[in-house]
Amino acid sequence: MNNRFFGHDLISVDSLKRDDVELLFQETGKMEKLVKDKGGDKKLEGKIIAALFYEPSSRTFSSFITAIQRLGGGFIPLNGMMNTSVAKGESFADTVKVFSAYSDLLVIRHPQEGTPKLAAEYSNVPVINAGDGSTGEHPTQALVDLYTIKEHFGEVNKLQILMVGDLAHYRPTNSLAKLLTLYPDIQLSFAAPEQVSLPKHIREFLAERKISFREYTDYKKILPQVDVLYVTRVKKEYMSEELYRQVQGSYIIDRSVVECMKNNSIIMHCLPRVGEIETSVDNNIRAVYLSRQVRNGLYLRMALLNLILGKI
Amino acid sequence: MNNRFFGHDLISVDSLKRDDVELLFQETGKMEKLVKDKGGDKKLEGKIIAALFYEPSSRTFSSFITAIQRLGGGFIPLNGMMNTSVAKGESFADTVKVFSAYSDLLVIRHPQEGTPKLAAEYSNVPVINAGDGSTGEHPTQALVDLYTIKEHFGEVNKLQILMVGDLAHYRPTNSLAKLLTLYPDIQLSFAAPEQVSLPKHIREFLAERKISFREYTDYKKILPQVDVLYVTRVKKEYMSEELYRQVQGSYIIDRSVVECMKNNSIIMHCLPRVGEIETSVDNNIRAVYLSRQVRNGLYLRMALLNLILGKI
Amino acid sequence: MNNRFFGHDLISVDSLKRDDVELLFQETGKMEKLVKDKGGDKKLEGKIIAALFYEPSSRTFSSFITAIQRLGGGFIPLNGMMNTSVAKGESFADTVKVFSAYSDLLVIRHPQEGTPKLAAEYSNVPVINAGDGSTGEHPTQALVDLYTIKEHFGEVNKLQILMVGDLAHYRPTNSLAKLLTLYPDIQLSFAAPEQVSLPKHIREFLAERKISFREYTDYKKILPQVDVLYVTRVKKEYMSEELYRQVQGSYIIDRSVVECMKNNSIIMHCLPRVGEIETSVDNNIRAVYLSRQVRNGLYLRMALLNLILGKI
Repeated sequence: MNNRFFGHDLISVDSLKRDDVELLFQETGKMEKLVKDKGGDKKLEGKIIAALFYEPSSRTFSSFITAIQRLGGGFIPLNGMMNTSVAKGESFADTVKVFSAYSDLLVIRHPQEGTPKLAAEYSNVPVINAGDGSTGEHPTQALVDLYTIKEHFGEVNKLQILMVGDLAHYRPTNSLAKLLTLYPDIQLSFAAPEQVSLPKHIREFLAERKISFREYTDYKKILPQVDVLYVTRVKKEYMSEELYRQVQGSYIIDRSVVECMKNNSIIMHCLPRVGEIETSVDNNIRAVYLSRQVRNGLYLRMALLNLILGKI
Repeated sequence: MNNRFFGHDLISVDSLKRDDVELLFQETGKMEKLVKDKGGDKKLEGKIIAALFYEPSSRTFSSFITAIQRLGGGFIPLNGMMNTSVAKGESFADTVKVFSAYSDLLVIRHPQEGTPKLAAEYSNVPVINAGDGSTGEHPTQALVDLYTIKEHFGEVNKLQILMVGDLAHYRPTNSLAKLLTLYPDIQLSFAAPEQVSLPKHIREFLAERKISFREYTDYKKILPQVDVLYVTRVKKEYMSEELYRQVQGSYIIDRSVVECMKNNSIIMHCLPRVGEIETSVDNNIRAVYLSRQVRNGLYLRMALLNLILGKI
Repeated sequence: MNNRFFGHDLISVDSLKRDDVELLFQETGKMEKLVKDKGGDKKLEGKIIAALFYEPSSRTFSSFITAIQRLGGGFIPLNGMMNTSVAKGESFADTVKVFSAYSDLLVIRHPQEGTPKLAAEYSNVPVINAGDGSTGEHPTQALVDLYTIKEHFGEVNKLQILMVGDLAHYRPTNSLAKLLTLYPDIQLSFAAPEQVSLPKHIREFLAERKISFREYTDYKKILPQVDVLYVTRVKKEYMSEELYRQVQGSYIIDRSVVECMKNNSIIMHCLPRVGEIETSVDNNIRAVYLSRQVRNGLYLRMALLNLILGKI
């Protein structure tokens, strides 16, 4: 298969074709086997990856750092880098040019939407978007999520996928919704309070790709038909106290909710969660958010780094 | 010898038997030789260790980070991790589950006592307690200290060991006192102002293991009999200004104090110090706190990581 | 050639002779080839380098971290380490002794001038000064700069070198001016507002080495004769608002300035910049500050670490 990742940026899932996703998933499976067999290898020996996280992060940062090292690569850890050169007033363009001179790939998280795209213009080396802005993208997370779905069901097309919670400020669901348009028979549903419903740019993207979707306020009635329930964290920092209580309260997944679901369905959350899914659900057979979804985050990022930097 | 460390947590020294300690010390000696001969090797190749330090740390953090790398392992550096997922409200259980999915071992420091034990319950991989709470444990430091004693005297039993200073808020002396109960003829003494004397749970542990001890306010009169003088940092953050001055002032080790000691005795401190031992004592032949005690911290942690993760 | 770096500190450029510089530059060239050919190798396998940055840094920190890893070494990343043991009141001497027990080399940046020199006295392992104080030195940067000059012109002697901007609070130009005294026929000029002109200790050093220099307020008239224009960042933090505006305003390099310069001249800046050079100059053929000067920072630090720690 043609490796179109090689030497390229991953800023948005827009650029991905079905073939690319298939190749990445195939390599992800190999990485799982590699980690289980011997922890890792030396595919990225001699490569240095700069993790430039303008927003502090533990999960995404750590999964990249781990992925790099399990493949024998080196890393520059800048987690919450607002207090260095940036504080001295350096332009983003200069920072990017400097780090792309030291390293072989940049992984960038930034609170401002569009910044990783900008970085890709300035950089001499490939750039991966590890999350931008409050309404931007988080392509690697969406790929991890899609991989987890595919791994469970074998096939993605025709699945009924429901995303619930705060959809207005959530990068992973933005990317996942876009990514699912690669599957023309997918059945997409969204359930969010009106104030925090799906962003306009995602609606337009879905329309353009001719993917219809349904919206619910009371999602519970369609739950028995759902294959994948994707729950988001309600982002308190983007709303009033009152709206927060209302949104947070209306989308809590507890055991009673789960019992309505099909036996073969799965419940996803890209974490961190703060109560959206009750811990009593964690051991339910449908829950994958603390197990496969997390582990796949490591394997898929290993596969992606290797496809961009190495040979298959 | 049977490696009972393999695949297990190290949360408290309670779980250790004399044989375990002997095995660890034997491996520690080998690690010293390894470092001196060639800096390190590849015993932990393919292993990733997450250093989750909820309290910022320089010394313990760095000795673990160094130990991992000298054995060819990789690491996730989270030093002072309060400002990431934790700030977003994630539960400790979720954090532990995520990091145990990426890595092969967790090293945890936490300001709340009992947290590493909790982590061990949630984690799929072994957990090392790198210090918990103000009155919890710090098992690796106590093992380093015991190793340093054994290295110097050849044997531990029958030694007269005196711990002085603030014993109420000091994890390493808690762990060391417990660990010394493996040696039934040990002679233990403690000297602390009444307000910051040995914690009740340590007293009970010593009683249970039938180890008697003496307590002094004026420790200087027994100093000529002492083999090991262990000095603690007075933790200003846990007491009133007045008490601090009183405690700090009454336990300063200077040259006159040291001159009362036996020729073959040693003075220990697990650092950082803030005046408890005057710098004029640093070059005294009895002082091991800036030399052997520090270096052994590296060798012992290398040995421990290898016993837990690798083969001997 | 005799490797006088081996096992030694690099605190100031004072200690360097022409031969040392030649050796370092020769090795720097080899490192460039190594990186381009295969990313790096294992020359520093088994070596651990502690990066103790008391001042947070992105650029210098990252170039060292990258250099270490490209040579297969390990690292202790302490970037902005004010909030750990230091906060507990530990003396600098104790910190240095501890880190020199774990690692094979210390790289130290510190806001107080003279601190790396002090560290070298306490340390059992070599120390590299990565920038001290506001008027101290930054020897590795100056070496990078000199290498970039030599790489471009083939020879350094007889070049006309002009440094402009805030010369009172700039470590790299201090070190570079001193380093250039190794070339007796160098033609040095400085242009700075009177309030932030060249520090007294640099003037005295130049006098001692019998290197004459010229000072200008309006540097533009000599620009057509200049081979190297070295621009500094005006350090707002060290001056009044009014002085800042005045200094900052009078030394902005734009296209009109650049057009006066010789075709074969170069423009340098050790970054970060905050407007001293307009971005319209970045693509000018004379601009090396975002390209060769940055990349050389990596190669030269690789060469230096290897000379101090390894064999040639």
